[in-house]
Amino acid sequence: MITLLTDFGLADHYVAAMKGVILSICPGVQIVDISHEITAFSIAEGAYTLSQAWKCFPAGTIHVAVVDPGVGSSRLPILAEAGGHFFIGPDNGIFTFVLKEVAKSTVRHITAIQYFRHPVSDTFHGRDIFAPVAAHLESGVSCSTFGAIIQRAVHLESAKPEQLSHNLWRGNVLKIDRFGNIITNFCFESFPFLATRSFQMRIFQDVVSRYCTSYNSDQSDRPFLIKGSSGFYEVSINQGDAASLMRAAPGTPIDLSV
Amino acid sequence: MITLLTDFGLADHYVAAMKGVILSICPGVQIVDISHEITAFSIAEGAYTLSQAWKCFPAGTIHVAVVDPGVGSSRLPILAEAGGHFFIGPDNGIFTFVLKEVAKSTVRHITAIQYFRHPVSDTFHGRDIFAPVAAHLESGVSCSTFGAIIQRAVHLESAKPEQLSHNLWRGNVLKIDRFGNIITNFCFESFPFLATRSFQMRIFQDVVSRYCTSYNSDQSDRPFLIKGSSGFYEVSINQGDAASLMRAAPGTPIDLSV
Amino acid sequence: MITLLTDFGLADHYVAAMKGVILSICPGVQIVDISHEITAFSIAEGAYTLSQAWKCFPAGTIHVAVVDPGVGSSRLPILAEAGGHFFIGPDNGIFTFVLKEVAKSTVRHITAIQYFRHPVSDTFHGRDIFAPVAAHLESGVSCSTFGAIIQRAVHLESAKPEQLSHNLWRGNVLKIDRFGNIITNFCFESFPFLATRSFQMRIFQDVVSRYCTSYNSDQSDRPFLIKGSSGFYEVSINQGDAASLMRAAPGTPIDLSV
Repeated sequence: MITLLTDFGLADHYVAAMKGVILSICPGVQIVDISHEITAFSIAEGAYTLSQAWKCFPAGTIHVAVVDPGVGSSRLPILAEAGGHFFIGPDNGIFTFVLKEVAKSTVRHITAIQYFRHPVSDTFHGRDIFAPVAAHLESGVSCSTFGAIIQRAVHLESAKPEQLSHNLWRGNVLKIDRFGNIITNFCFESFPFLATRSFQMRIFQDVVSRYCTSYNSDQSDRPFLIKGSSGFYEVSINQGDAASLMRAAPGTPIDLSV
Repeated sequence: MITLLTDFGLADHYVAAMKGVILSICPGVQIVDISHEITAFSIAEGAYTLSQAWKCFPAGTIHVAVVDPGVGSSRLPILAEAGGHFFIGPDNGIFTFVLKEVAKSTVRHITAIQYFRHPVSDTFHGRDIFAPVAAHLESGVSCSTFGAIIQRAVHLESAKPEQLSHNLWRGNVLKIDRFGNIITNFCFESFPFLATRSFQMRIFQDVVSRYCTSYNSDQSDRPFLIKGSSGFYEVSINQGDAASLMRAAPGTPIDLSV
Repeated sequence: MITLLTDFGLADHYVAAMKGVILSICPGVQIVDISHEITAFSIAEGAYTLSQAWKCFPAGTIHVAVVDPGVGSSRLPILAEAGGHFFIGPDNGIFTFVLKEVAKSTVRHITAIQYFRHPVSDTFHGRDIFAPVAAHLESGVSCSTFGAIIQRAVHLESAKPEQLSHNLWRGNVLKIDRFGNIITNFCFESFPFLATRSFQMRIFQDVVSRYCTSYNSDQSDRPFLIKGSSGFYEVSINQGDAASLMRAAPGTPIDLSV
């Protein structure tokens, strides 16, 4: 099985071109879209989205991720093995969270041009390099055939909340989802006490100090904190759009005091 | 085969997470998207969209519908058998039109937690309950295994036009589609004479009194009535956007006089 | 394999209805979306998008294209064989570029109503004619069964640049893609020298006179010319939106002088 994540959108022919290339090499393979609506050029958003999806798929799945503002430049095409899955895309940090979460991984620089689609354009490596390499890997070509192991892949800066004093942390917004939920970078694991202790979470002028266990347990039209499905706390409004109300966007700072 | 209908949009990882869970349990199953662009929280729009799509699929298809503002609350997860198809989702009215259209149906409260994905979050039952239950059903687990039959499912208020006098009815707008066609709740079956008799259909200040048999048989830039593909009359403009012109939205009242 | 290209969008049930019809006739067939976000009624945009995608698919693929403002009128439903692929849709020019690019093709008027879905609506031939015909073709029904060969299909006006003087050409914008790249109708083949000679490309008040080999080889926030992945030159800005800046849209004239 091959999954695709890109910032290509669904209006143009780009995604279909990748699928056609894959299916020409590897007929009948199941292709699943993770997202093609990543904000254009946003490697961080792509990395977060991939990190939330890949673990739901069975071992052996090949994930192709193409958010690639550096296409045609010197950035490397890579193939990573991690957690029993395979990851193919540009070496620009798109696999940061995947590689952080698994104990062991290997990353290869893809150099086996006999598996590329020729002529290779300078503007669409999704079609010309990443798709055909994924299809050949799915068809049984071994990882080592595609290129040699490299020691370091590009990593995005970590975005863990920083502790400013004994009861104050500064984090930020990871992502806004379709419902306007503000996904913070405060995870349950590090901040388990938010569900049971009083706290103040400040985003710009707004302060959230209530915790709810389900979206519709609140009937107030005001924002509350909730455990999201991704392992992070979210600021939400029941059937409302918390992000618009609070003008939060990816990267917006969040101050937590307890 | 499993179909998916949600209000999750296609930008986030939510739909892919459901697909990954399904394919981990039931490798190779064909998954078809009905729509993921249902207006957020709009159970009525989801119910209408599902009612138009499900009958095009072969008997035995499993339809998972997750427009679920009550996720994590006391609303039940249900599994319905109706018309030879299976329907899985929250008990909030999303299956209203399906259950109305078929002669016989059974609805079960899903309680077999051994088929859930654990830990079950309070915010994403699509991934943690509905997707895995659908996959196990597809894999051969029998309906009765998932829970006991319940006598009533939540139904949305019916939206048939009301007869106000011998020649006057009040209906409303069911849906606006991508082209700006105004899908009314006046169906061919109950109002067969609109194609052949004079009529006036009023939406706010605008009155439509012409009937056309195809979109481009009109060259006037003005709205007309046409038989839609869903069994309901629609107000349309040839290559124009009737809904924007007339400011119609789901629920907008429509007065018909003949 | 069957591909689908429409202007139906992904919010409504229309695309799913087509897929359900196909899968009811031809269980298990692989269906790939090319695009459903073609601008409503834009046959030219659909024709361009299809022309960029179809060649990536394996021979024998059936491509269903439904951008069909004339649905229900006298325009013909057609089935074309071209380049080893099959094309099904309305005879309105949607296959213009496909039919131009291949040496030999046959076009048939689809008349075999026994393969339609009945009753055939006047507003949704995607579901009632094109989808079931594609599914029956995939199932093994021969092309000649669907109808007789016709001698001419509707063709869109060609859009090659016109030479105005010995060093001046007037072309136009073919398409704007998701990234705001302005895809021109100047192709590499006819204008190979743009990569190596000085030139001026004028779009409204703006003049582009630089050529770059990759998007991020430029760090200036100003537009440049680049070889696109589709065989045409594109005007782009590194991680910017050239089309918005220059107010270009499909059809906008472009003057090239060298």
